[in-house]
Amino acid sequence: MDNRSIGVFDSGLGGLTAVREMLRILPDEQIVYFGDTGRVPYGSRSPKIITQYARQDAAFLMSKNVKAIISACGTVSSVAGSILAKELSVPFTGVLEPTARAAAAATINGRIGVIATNATVNSGSFQHALHAISPKLQVFARSCPLFVPIVESGFMLDHPDITKEVAETYLAPLRNEKVDTVILGCTHYPILKSIIGSVMGQDVRLIDSGRETALFCRSLLAENHLLAESNHGSCSFFVSDGMEDFSRIAGIFLQEDIHSSVQLVDIEKYEGAIS
Amino acid sequence: MDNRSIGVFDSGLGGLTAVREMLRILPDEQIVYFGDTGRVPYGSRSPKIITQYARQDAAFLMSKNVKAIISACGTVSSVAGSILAKELSVPFTGVLEPTARAAAAATINGRIGVIATNATVNSGSFQHALHAISPKLQVFARSCPLFVPIVESGFMLDHPDITKEVAETYLAPLRNEKVDTVILGCTHYPILKSIIGSVMGQDVRLIDSGRETALFCRSLLAENHLLAESNHGSCSFFVSDGMEDFSRIAGIFLQEDIHSSVQLVDIEKYEGAIS
Repeated sequence: MDNRSIGVFDSGLGGLTAVREMLRILPDEQIVYFGDTGRVPYGSRSPKIITQYARQDAAFLMSKNVKAIISACGTVSSVAGSILAKELSVPFTGVLEPTARAAAAATINGRIGVIATNATVNSGSFQHALHAISPKLQVFARSCPLFVPIVESGFMLDHPDITKEVAETYLAPLRNEKVDTVILGCTHYPILKSIIGSVMGQDVRLIDSGRETALFCRSLLAENHLLAESNHGSCSFFVSDGMEDFSRIAGIFLQEDIHSSVQLVDIEKYEGAIS
Repeated sequence: MDNRSIGVFDSGLGGLTAVREMLRILPDEQIVYFGDTGRVPYGSRSPKIITQYARQDAAFLMSKNVKAIISACGTVSSVAGSILAKELSVPFTGVLEPTARAAAAATINGRIGVIATNATVNSGSFQHALHAISPKLQVFARSCPLFVPIVESGFMLDHPDITKEVAETYLAPLRNEKVDTVILGCTHYPILKSIIGSVMGQDVRLIDSGRETALFCRSLLAENHLLAESNHGSCSFFVSDGMEDFSRIAGIFLQEDIHSSVQLVDIEKYEGAIS
């Protein structure tokens, strides 16, 4: 038993979709969430900068005495995941491997679609992770650059029909390739799951990176004898730039009204070692 | 006559739409462009951070011995424009006042629409600038959060019909209010000018902030006897994070193929005084 917190970070607030799954799957755990809202988005930055930011984010969480760290950020997981796994003194996982394992287990015809941001698609990270599991898997990746702003502005709530048309243009190539499994490779995409599902059809399985990472985290904690006692669940939020509408956006991602306070962090201070 | 360069900066590459207009209106001038691609977007940041970034951007341009500085960024112009105008030792303008003046001169029925990012709309900056010119003007502002990613991903090229549907949802309230003039209050929006124009109808005048700022800059230089001699025109580009696809995105904004080199700047170094 270990009642210390689990640290979760993301480039912004999208990682809260992973927190939502953790609250369901690990209800007894304390979660410390850091969203780097002052430097979001990471996806367009260089690998050097992304690695520097990821080290600072992890260093901040380590200062909160966490027992494990999860990067809910597809970009960090793709670019700096293996570096963090090596450097950190506590168990670490990104979203990449748990998600790739789940997709490889789910597919029947061996044809897997990946939808994600430009940076994640261009990095080829999901393709590599899937081919490491089985070189026979055929992977078809598409970036969907409008999905993040559609979610963050709440456009899908007022205009589901246009959102579905946008989804159809992005997903048509995956339908043509007859994939039977699609990885939602960006933390924002689970919010559009029902629209994506209706476009792909009910026979296509959607793999939610947040959910798979939460399940993986439960195994990781169990293996390391780090699970918390019952009834210790809680969640605290930290961001690197003030957000007037934190509650509104966090509500979209957590899909519940939250009135939690959020605290501001000067993330540039956490430059040093991370272990 | 003064053959020093004009410095132009923006949070990213959107300000190149202003550079495009400057190349037309001030063909003899040397332009030094700085795009803060390492810290884009500014629109979601706090006023304190935006002001700090704007000072650093201006300090970098001053290090290039410029004779005038233009902030092509609607957010900087709204939040930190008056501070820069006071602190800098060379003539400065943002996009706000030139654009507001042009709109006030263009409207006949006194009803002006403003479309811009969330941050610019929430700041009320265009409304204030217009009311400072004439308190009788009626101003109707709408944020259009999908327009920037539509432009940056080139979505409008492949899917003009869906782009027009998105524009219709954003612009319907302005049509209902019977505005006769619309300010394109974000540097990205001139790229969508023909689609916006077809939705609003040919009787509605669109005010391009980049074009109006370039015209204002010409007057500013002329008044201060700072215009360059003939045939000195050129353009150099600096960014704060490496962009593999700089030429592609710059090509969208400049609407011409460019093969210019781009240089990397460590913008965090330019923390000090800016004059």
